[in-house]
Amino acid sequence: MKYPNGKQYSSAGKSPGTNFSQGYSNRGMTLEEDINATNTFYLDTDRAVIHKKPTPVQIVNVNYPKRSAAVITEAYFKQASTTDYNGIYRNKYIDFEAKETKNKTRFPLANIHEHQIAHMKSVIHHGGISFLIIRFAVYNKTYYIPAESFFPYWDQQFKKDGKKSIPYETITNEGYLIPFHYQARVNYLAIIDKLYF
Amino acid sequence: MKYPNGKQYSSAGKSPGTNFSQGYSNRGMTLEEDINATNTFYLDTDRAVIHKKPTPVQIVNVNYPKRSAAVITEAYFKQASTTDYNGIYRNKYIDFEAKETKNKTRFPLANIHEHQIAHMKSVIHHGGISFLIIRFAVYNKTYYIPAESFFPYWDQQFKKDGKKSIPYETITNEGYLIPFHYQARVNYLAIIDKLYF
Repeated sequence: MKYPNGKQYSSAGKSPGTNFSQGYSNRGMTLEEDINATNTFYLDTDRAVIHKKPTPVQIVNVNYPKRSAAVITEAYFKQASTTDYNGIYRNKYIDFEAKETKNKTRFPLANIHEHQIAHMKSVIHHGGISFLIIRFAVYNKTYYIPAESFFPYWDQQFKKDGKKSIPYETITNEGYLIPFHYQARVNYLAIIDKLYF
Repeated sequence: MKYPNGKQYSSAGKSPGTNFSQGYSNRGMTLEEDINATNTFYLDTDRAVIHKKPTPVQIVNVNYPKRSAAVITEAYFKQASTTDYNGIYRNKYIDFEAKETKNKTRFPLANIHEHQIAHMKSVIHHGGISFLIIRFAVYNKTYYIPAESFFPYWDQQFKKDGKKSIPYETITNEGYLIPFHYQARVNYLAIIDKLYF
């Protein structure tokens, strides 16, 4: 295992590396960078308070040099026990996971973990709003999938002949295309407004 | 600087070290350990979905050895931009910070950061429930302080002759003693039930 999502680690915004070569209309930002920028815009304009949780790390060794910052010298990536983003919007608890795929025809369910699904089910049970943001990088299309619509596709994979992925067409039918806005690059609150208010 | 809160890092639950010598009636657990156990109990009994956010870490260098897990070999503690705990309870967004002090007479305001106060003010503005959990370790008493009650004490410190701490007596008057429960060691939902439902 490398990083829990299977990708090599790259420090956000610091070394975008190959991302610039993907030809996004929105200047080669990753989905995570776009969502972070969106959340900052929501916060600055007092629309919502939604943050990405820090990457969970198991710290094994720390050095405390004199007169300088503590240095973590040995640590490992841990698998997250919840989704990556949560917060509050219009009195409602908001909770979601975001995934980008380079696949052209389907979203592989292996991108999501069982405990994240369990978490999203709990959130809905307690009255929160939960969803997935899925970007198909090759089309540069980003969809909002209500968690309630996602669960049946998740659950069916464990049945006989269950499918391990969701076709792109299903995503476009069950999901909502998230509009791009210059400052809210992944303007998902527009979908929440439409669905819940 | 060491850890943002000024303390040396200790891996929760792994090496409790000196904590066991503090003579808590609740078996020498730190406040963080008690709250984590409480949140796990709430989750297991389906009462609430509240988690501690991971410690924010700035990752600088990662090694990817063949056939084994990625190792972070250089990283630094970052200051959190929000509070440590959030989640959902009875349809409400819940957001709080927890601090333990060894001080016998007062709670030093330096334990909290300006951006955490700004965050708590935003949370309340958007309809969430925000508070502080403050433990006076020497008395083994843990209090729930509504954020709204805390703000005036925070704000006055910047005025002329402002006090940089809150007296213990004020905490006991403005706050609510959190009951200890065998499985919910810091049973703060009992206070939320009383105040909001």
